[in-house]
Amino acid sequence: MNTGSRPGGLAQVLARTLPCLQWSRQYDREALGADLLAAGIVTLMLIPQSLAYALLAGLPAEVGLYASVAPLLLYAVFGSSSALAVGPVAVVSLMTAAAIGGVAAAGTPAHVAAALTLAFLSGAMLLAMALLRLGFLASFLSHPVISGFVSASGLLIAATQLKTLLGVQASGHDLLTLLPALARQLGNVHGLTLAVGVCATAFLLWVRRGLKPLLQRASLSPRAADMATKAAPVAAIAVSTALSWALDWQGQGVQVVGHIPQGLPPLTWPSFDPALWQALALPALLISVVGFVESVSVGQTLAARRRERIEPNQELLALGASNLGAACTGGLPVSGGFSRSAVNFDAGARTPAAGAYTALGILAASLLLTPALHHLPQATLAATIVVAVLSLVDFSVLRRTWVYARADFAAVAATLVGTLALGVETGLLAGVLLSLALYLLRTSRPHIASVGLVPGTEHFRNVLRHAVRTSPALLSLRVDESLYFANARSLEDRINDAVAAQPALRHVVLQCSAINDIDASALESLEAIDLRLRAAGIALHLSEVKGPVMDRLQRSDFLQGLSGRVFLSHYQAVAALTPEVVAAPPATG
Amino acid sequence: MNTGSRPGGLAQVLARTLPCLQWSRQYDREALGADLLAAGIVTLMLIPQSLAYALLAGLPAEVGLYASVAPLLLYAVFGSSSALAVGPVAVVSLMTAAAIGGVAAAGTPAHVAAALTLAFLSGAMLLAMALLRLGFLASFLSHPVISGFVSASGLLIAATQLKTLLGVQASGHDLLTLLPALARQLGNVHGLTLAVGVCATAFLLWVRRGLKPLLQRASLSPRAADMATKAAPVAAIAVSTALSWALDWQGQGVQVVGHIPQGLPPLTWPSFDPALWQALALPALLISVVGFVESVSVGQTLAARRRERIEPNQELLALGASNLGAACTGGLPVSGGFSRSAVNFDAGARTPAAGAYTALGILAASLLLTPALHHLPQATLAATIVVAVLSLVDFSVLRRTWVYARADFAAVAATLVGTLALGVETGLLAGVLLSLALYLLRTSRPHIASVGLVPGTEHFRNVLRHAVRTSPALLSLRVDESLYFANARSLEDRINDAVAAQPALRHVVLQCSAINDIDASALESLEAIDLRLRAAGIALHLSEVKGPVMDRLQRSDFLQGLSGRVFLSHYQAVAALTPEVVAAPPATG
Repeated sequence: MNTGSRPGGLAQVLARTLPCLQWSRQYDREALGADLLAAGIVTLMLIPQSLAYALLAGLPAEVGLYASVAPLLLYAVFGSSSALAVGPVAVVSLMTAAAIGGVAAAGTPAHVAAALTLAFLSGAMLLAMALLRLGFLASFLSHPVISGFVSASGLLIAATQLKTLLGVQASGHDLLTLLPALARQLGNVHGLTLAVGVCATAFLLWVRRGLKPLLQRASLSPRAADMATKAAPVAAIAVSTALSWALDWQGQGVQVVGHIPQGLPPLTWPSFDPALWQALALPALLISVVGFVESVSVGQTLAARRRERIEPNQELLALGASNLGAACTGGLPVSGGFSRSAVNFDAGARTPAAGAYTALGILAASLLLTPALHHLPQATLAATIVVAVLSLVDFSVLRRTWVYARADFAAVAATLVGTLALGVETGLLAGVLLSLALYLLRTSRPHIASVGLVPGTEHFRNVLRHAVRTSPALLSLRVDESLYFANARSLEDRINDAVAAQPALRHVVLQCSAINDIDASALESLEAIDLRLRAAGIALHLSEVKGPVMDRLQRSDFLQGLSGRVFLSHYQAVAALTPEVVAAPPATG
Repeated sequence: MNTGSRPGGLAQVLARTLPCLQWSRQYDREALGADLLAAGIVTLMLIPQSLAYALLAGLPAEVGLYASVAPLLLYAVFGSSSALAVGPVAVVSLMTAAAIGGVAAAGTPAHVAAALTLAFLSGAMLLAMALLRLGFLASFLSHPVISGFVSASGLLIAATQLKTLLGVQASGHDLLTLLPALARQLGNVHGLTLAVGVCATAFLLWVRRGLKPLLQRASLSPRAADMATKAAPVAAIAVSTALSWALDWQGQGVQVVGHIPQGLPPLTWPSFDPALWQALALPALLISVVGFVESVSVGQTLAARRRERIEPNQELLALGASNLGAACTGGLPVSGGFSRSAVNFDAGARTPAAGAYTALGILAASLLLTPALHHLPQATLAATIVVAVLSLVDFSVLRRTWVYARADFAAVAATLVGTLALGVETGLLAGVLLSLALYLLRTSRPHIASVGLVPGTEHFRNVLRHAVRTSPALLSLRVDESLYFANARSLEDRINDAVAAQPALRHVVLQCSAINDIDASALESLEAIDLRLRAAGIALHLSEVKGPVMDRLQRSDFLQGLSGRVFLSHYQAVAALTPEVVAAPPATG
C-alpha cells in the first residue's frame, strides 16, 4: 500500500494544504510560456491599478506595489484557483480607507501602520475561518446585499475620485459628507488638472467602447483586441506622464504621484495596540468576508469555464496567507480582483505560477520603474479608477428583486442607501441584518393552508385555491414551514380561531409534509394545542411526518400523550376519520 | 343596521380598546361578591410581596406598595384577562435592580428616579408595540430561553437575598461578583438576623409542603386549604413583626423595614435626561418583552381554564398603561405575576374589577398599616422571596432539551450560565441571539435527501433509509428546507458533487414539496446550477412546486430558460424521464 495516499497521511495533508505541490509536478515548458505571457500582461495592468488603489485607500502609492508582491507569491503557493490574481482591489481599498481613516490622519505613520494592522487582522481572521471551516459564514451575505453593496461602493469610489479629478481637497467616506465638501470646493477647481482628468477619462471610456471594434476591424483576433484594450490604461499613463514631465505640470499645480522610494518591499510588522485592534476588529471582519466572497465568486466563475472546481476553504487559507504577507511587507488588505483575474485567464495563465511571475514583474517595476512614475498626474490614476469601478455599478438588481421578491428588494435598497449615505460598514451591516431579520420574519408567519380532497384523486389542495371536498367535522391544515419558536404561536392562534369558527369540529389533522423540523418550543405548543383540543372534545392527528422529524418526536413523550393518531398519508387520515368525504360522489359546484 | 357594531365605528374601537366597557355591563351583585373576596385574599398576599420586591430592586419598601395601586387600576380598565394581577414581580424586579444599579447608587434620589424612568420607558415601549402590533416580537424569545432565564433569575434572586438573611452587606447582580462578596463577609454574619431568617424560611417551606395536607386532613376543602397556604406569609410577617417590636430586635442590630411614609402614592414624573434614556433603553426593552411574555403566558394559562381567550395586543396596551401609571405614581416596572394571578383566579375573581378592589386594599394598607410594618425584619421578607422564587427554578428543561434537540439545549444552557455568570441582560441577550443563530445555522445546512421510488407505489423515499428503485441516468433530490441565501450554496455543492460522482447522469429532478419559498439568491443559484448542468449535457427539472413558489418563479424568466420541465408530481417526472424505473419489475434486494 502507498502510505502517502492514506487520508490524513502527512503527504496527503501537505498536498491538500499546498496545491502547488500538485500542479508543479506536471509543470512543463508549455505551461511556463503561457504563464509568462499572462504574467507580462497582468503586470502591465497591475502597476497603475496598484498605485491607484493605494491612493484610493489614502495611502502612499508605493504601498499598492508592495501589496502586489508577497500576496501574489503566497497565493501561488496556497491558492487553488489557476487564474485568480490577488492584490489591492477597489471595494476592499474603499473599506480600508473608511476603516483606517477613523483611527489616524492620512499621511501620518500611524495611518500606514493602521493599514498594516488591518491587513494582519483580516489575514488572521481568514486563517481562523479556514482552520475552523467557517467559510459557510460567507453565505449569510445574500446575493442582493452583495449586489447593492458593490454598486454603492462603485458609486462611492467614483465620488471619492472627483476631488482628484477636480484638483481640490475634500474628505469623507460617504456621500452625505463627501458631496457637500466637494460642492464647497467648486470655486477652487484646478483647470489643468480637470483637463487632464477629463481627457484621460474620455480616452479610457473610448478604449472600452470604441477601440476593441476598431482593432477587430483591423483584423486583430478578438482575444488580442481584448488584451490590447485591457492594456490601454498603461498607454494613458505613459502619455500623460511624458506630457507632465515635458510641460512641467507639477510646476503649474497639477498633483503628481511624486517620489516613490525605489527598492524591495520593506519588512514591516503590524501594531499590537489593543485599542487599535478593537477599533479595527469589525472592519477587518467585514473586509475578510467581502474579500473572501469576491475572491471565491471570481475564482468559481473562472474555474467553471475550464470545468475545474476551487475549494472555498483552501481559498480562505490562501487569502489569509496573502493578507498576512501584505501586513509584513508594507502593504494593505488584498483580495482577488475580477478584472485582473479575467485578464490573467484570457491571456492563458495555466497555473498559479503566473501569479508568482506577475509578482516578480511588479518587483522589477518597484525597483526600476518608480522614478519614471514621479510625474504621473494623480488625475490620470483617478480616471483609471473611475472607469474601472463604473462597471461595478448595476442597478438592474433593484428592478429584478422588486418584481421577484420585495424582501430581497428591501435588502438591496437598504444596503445601497445605507452604504451611500452612512458608509461601507454601516451599509453592509444594515443589509446583512435586514436580510436576516426579514427571513426570520417570513418564517415566523408561516403559510398555513386549510386543505381539502381533490375529487377523484388522493391529493389535497388549498380550499381557497381549488374546488375540493371537506367535512365540517374535520380540519386539514398544511403548515408550509418548519415549526420553531418564532412561529409556534402562529399555529396555536390559527387552530384556536378555526376551532371557534367550526362548531361541528371533531378532528384536526396536521399535514406535515413541509415540516422539516419541530423544535422544543414548537413541541410545547403542539402539546398545548393537543390539551386544549382534547378539552373541547377534538382529537389532534398528524400525517406525512418526515423521517427525521418522527425520529425526534419519538424521543419525547408527545406521541404517547397525543389524543389522535399519526397517519402515513393525509389521504389515509381523511379516509379513516371522515369516510364520507372519500366515499361520497363529487360535490356539485 | 346598528352602526355601533360597524367595524371601525367609534363604539367598536372603544369596546376593543376598553374591555371594561364589555364586562361592566353585565356586572351584578354576585360578581361583586366574588371579586371582593378574591381582592381581599390577594391584598393580604400582595402587601409583603410588594414590599419584598421593592427591596429586591434596591428601592425603598413603599415603592412596592405604590406600584400596586395605579397599575392595578389601569389594568382593570385596559386588560383583557379577568384574573391577571399586575404589580412588582420577582424577575422584573431583579432586572430593574441590575438596570438602575448601573446608573445610580442605591439609596439616592437618582436611583428612585431611574426606576421611574425605567417604568416609563418600558410602558412607552409596550404602548408602541401595541400600536404597531409588534406583539409577535415576543415569539422570538423561545421557550427554552425563557425557561433558562427564569430558572437562573430564581437562583440569582435567592443569592441576592442571602446577604439579608445573613445580615451582611454585599452587592452584585451576578453570581461571579455576588458569591465572592458574600464569602468575604462570612465573618460578619449577624446571628439573630440569621436565626430570624432561617426560622421564617423553614416556616414558609413547611407551609408549602406540610400545611396543606394537614388542613385537608382537618377537613378543610382543598381550595380553602390552598388559600390558607397562600396567605401564610402574612402570618410569618405578623408574628416576626410582633416579636421584633416586643424584643427590640432593631436595637440588637437586626435590619428592619423602618419608617414607611404614610399616605397616597405620590405624583411623580420620570427623568427626561437623554443620557439616562440611552443607558436604560436596552434594559427597558428586555423588561418589556420579558414582562409581556410572562403576563401573556400567565393570562393564557388561566383563560384556557375557563375557555376564554386573551388578546395579546390588548395585553401590550394594558401593560404599557400600567407601567406608565407606575412611572407617574412613584413605582417601579410591573408585570403580571403568576402566583398572585393564580390566587386571584382560585379565589374566584370574575372580572378585572377584582384588581381594582385589590388596588384599593393596598391603598388602604399604605394609608393605615405602614406604621405597623416599621419593625418587620428584612430577613422575613427575604425569606418570603427565597421561598417564592425557588418554585421558579426548574432544571428539568436541561434534560428534556438534551434528549429532544441539542440546539434547544444549547440555548437553555447559554441563557442559564450567561444569566448566572454575567447578569440578566447579558444572559437573556446571549440566549436570544444564540437561539436565532442556531436556527439560521440549521436552515443554512438543509437536509437534502436523494430519493428513489418505493416499488409498487407512487411514493419516493430516501435511498439511504429505504429499498427503492433508482436509475443511474436520473438523480432525484428532495430538499427539506426553503431555499434562501444562506443555504443556496449548499444545494449547488450537493449537485456539483453528485454530478461528479454519477457519470451516466442525464436528468436532475428537484422534488420541491418541502420548499416553501425561493428567494432571489436561491433563484440565482438555481440558474447557475441549470447553466452548469446544461453545459455538462444534463437537464434540470422541478416537481411538486407549491402554488406560492410557482407564482413567484413565474414572475422571473427562470422557467423560460430552464433546460428541463416542471412536473406536477415526482412520479410523473420519473415516469416521463426514465420509464424503465417505473415499468421494470421490482429489483431484487
